[in-house]
Amino acid sequence: MRILIAPDSFKGSLTAQQATEAIESGVRSVRNKQQTDILRCPMADGGEGSLRVITDIWKVPVQRSHTEDPLGRPHCASWALSADGNEAVIEIAEASGLPLVKDLHPQVLEANTKGTGILIAEALSRGARSITLCLGGSATVDGGIGILSVLGVRFYDRAGSELRPIPRNLTAIASIDLSSLTDQATQATWQLLVDVTNPLTGVQGAAAVFGPQKGADAAQVQHLDRGLENLARLLSEVSNTDLMHRQSFGAAGGVPVGLYALFGAKVSSGSEWLGELVDLPNLVSQADVIFTGEGRIDGQSGSGKVVSYIAQLAAKVAVAPPVVCFAGQIDCPPSQLHQMGIAAAFSISTGSQSAEELMESAAPLLHNVVANVTSLLGHGELLTNSSVSPLP
Amino acid sequence: MRILIAPDSFKGSLTAQQATEAIESGVRSVRNKQQTDILRCPMADGGEGSLRVITDIWKVPVQRSHTEDPLGRPHCASWALSADGNEAVIEIAEASGLPLVKDLHPQVLEANTKGTGILIAEALSRGARSITLCLGGSATVDGGIGILSVLGVRFYDRAGSELRPIPRNLTAIASIDLSSLTDQATQATWQLLVDVTNPLTGVQGAAAVFGPQKGADAAQVQHLDRGLENLARLLSEVSNTDLMHRQSFGAAGGVPVGLYALFGAKVSSGSEWLGELVDLPNLVSQADVIFTGEGRIDGQSGSGKVVSYIAQLAAKVAVAPPVVCFAGQIDCPPSQLHQMGIAAAFSISTGSQSAEELMESAAPLLHNVVANVTSLLGHGELLTNSSVSPLP
Repeated sequence: MRILIAPDSFKGSLTAQQATEAIESGVRSVRNKQQTDILRCPMADGGEGSLRVITDIWKVPVQRSHTEDPLGRPHCASWALSADGNEAVIEIAEASGLPLVKDLHPQVLEANTKGTGILIAEALSRGARSITLCLGGSATVDGGIGILSVLGVRFYDRAGSELRPIPRNLTAIASIDLSSLTDQATQATWQLLVDVTNPLTGVQGAAAVFGPQKGADAAQVQHLDRGLENLARLLSEVSNTDLMHRQSFGAAGGVPVGLYALFGAKVSSGSEWLGELVDLPNLVSQADVIFTGEGRIDGQSGSGKVVSYIAQLAAKVAVAPPVVCFAGQIDCPPSQLHQMGIAAAFSISTGSQSAEELMESAAPLLHNVVANVTSLLGHGELLTNSSVSPLP
Repeated sequence: MRILIAPDSFKGSLTAQQATEAIESGVRSVRNKQQTDILRCPMADGGEGSLRVITDIWKVPVQRSHTEDPLGRPHCASWALSADGNEAVIEIAEASGLPLVKDLHPQVLEANTKGTGILIAEALSRGARSITLCLGGSATVDGGIGILSVLGVRFYDRAGSELRPIPRNLTAIASIDLSSLTDQATQATWQLLVDVTNPLTGVQGAAAVFGPQKGADAAQVQHLDRGLENLARLLSEVSNTDLMHRQSFGAAGGVPVGLYALFGAKVSSGSEWLGELVDLPNLVSQADVIFTGEGRIDGQSGSGKVVSYIAQLAAKVAVAPPVVCFAGQIDCPPSQLHQMGIAAAFSISTGSQSAEELMESAAPLLHNVVANVTSLLGHGELLTNSSVSPLP
């Protein structure tokens, strides 16, 4: 039996690497190397944790650079540069992430992506020609104007006064000046990794859906939505294309809109991009069974998350390997899991833990439930093949 | 594939019958009748819920009789009489159970088994020649003197005054008068079903181990322990045998000591007795896989509980069917489960429920986790037998 272990991170408790190790130790507590091959593939979906997966695959050290947090406070953030120096990967959560401003009262009309822009500028100045931006976990709804401002874009109001690149000012922007855009930025290849499909504006847009969890009240959601619409309208004039209804442009508070309009950035599923990077389609085709997981599985796991991407890959294999999913919380019924292509999903909970305890003890709990499932799979063989000896 | 469904009750939330139905519906949501045979066998361990299992097997109505609760308040309780009228089954929890006095401050020196004695007397007067007493869940630590008093036993102090049959008086008993014992009681065949192995007295005894959960403080535990020792000493003189160190005599606050000494009551594992009644050894030998469960699995599940009894039966089968256990809470590691002969155990929790919510939603949660495990078992077949089609 060959088991592929390919979990996402368990947000707030385990990195993808730690989850992989806990699952592996659970398998190994029941089946030895003669009985079972293990393939390891820590995954990410383009959101938090992607950077770590990429530096592990590239076998490069993490870069650390001085920048600022979403509210302008000094901050030191991580990013990655490929060994040849050509490709940079920047995770928006590193400099513009929600956890960075959890110590303050929400200031969603101020919080911006300038810190991420500083990291991008640093990567470009170090010679990177390809920028891959992982969008997920941002504290911001600024349409990416923080990033754009660092790269040389200027925003003016109707009276011709320059505006600070903060989301409060999105509605006031009357013109955009691209004359100071850096060549490095315009000549780079841009890749945006997303884990959502929401459009920029409207009821499914960046402000309406993700604004509240970033601290926006109803009035602020409306202000931000109108602001993003204004920005998209102005950028549409520059780029001569519709920007309002494109899939996934609502990621990270609307960051894709400007980077697409000005630099032709390609928007990709983070799971797919990372999956190709780590050779996941090939690994899936070699597996008899796949163990994956994430912190929480719900109806949303069907759109672009690691577990559903893996289920899609598995379904393409001639004899599809069953996909078994482990999670801190499972918030959808078995029928929905089966529709997603997941054979079975199990919580790490033993029924005795609070949400906090599930986070704190995620590694041993994950080990235990994996041991139980692995034991069951061993007996599954037994059910139809009596020449196989029972496990010791 | 043939699945045997044989759970204990989920204490506080599901009867064994309800648990069986939830598990069956979970299996059926994944596998139809052509794919999978189901054998149903709701179980009990001689504790609460045993009565229901027995009346279902005997296909007799539940008897209802007026009696009193552990503190002497009027109470109507259930018991069972076999169709031929020869055998009665009485569950001590019905008239002397802990839930009956949860509305009052604990009065462990008063709480007694007289109410159970009244049910026994009723059964004997109705013609029963065999009394099976399910010991488990009692509120009492009275050494069974409540029961004995109803059957005609008198207790006197050193001064020759008759004592009320309450646990406070256990230490004061100086002599026991058997002259008024009823013939019905002495001529009956007595069977005591237990789910613990604790002796009557000492650090593992009825007072020390179960006294605190019945409301006894440290001083009361000591008083009760000395009282049970005094009772055993006096009954040893009557019956000319050691009673202090016998296994399981600490069940139900020491009820076995008197019934053994005076009537030669046989003490049996409730799981085994009920298992034989429902033909469980035969059903286990016919199963490819066994689904069992109980409210909570812990280290104690190894001694006399339904799940460990079933695991022992399964281990005796030539090709042992794997035993999969479902529970509200699982409080022991996989290695201990495997030692008990359990292949895998899964909590019904999805990681989102409080203890109360697990109780309230036990049936649908049990359905869901069973569906997941059944799906996995279907794929388990797939792993080694590619001629079997994947499940739809």
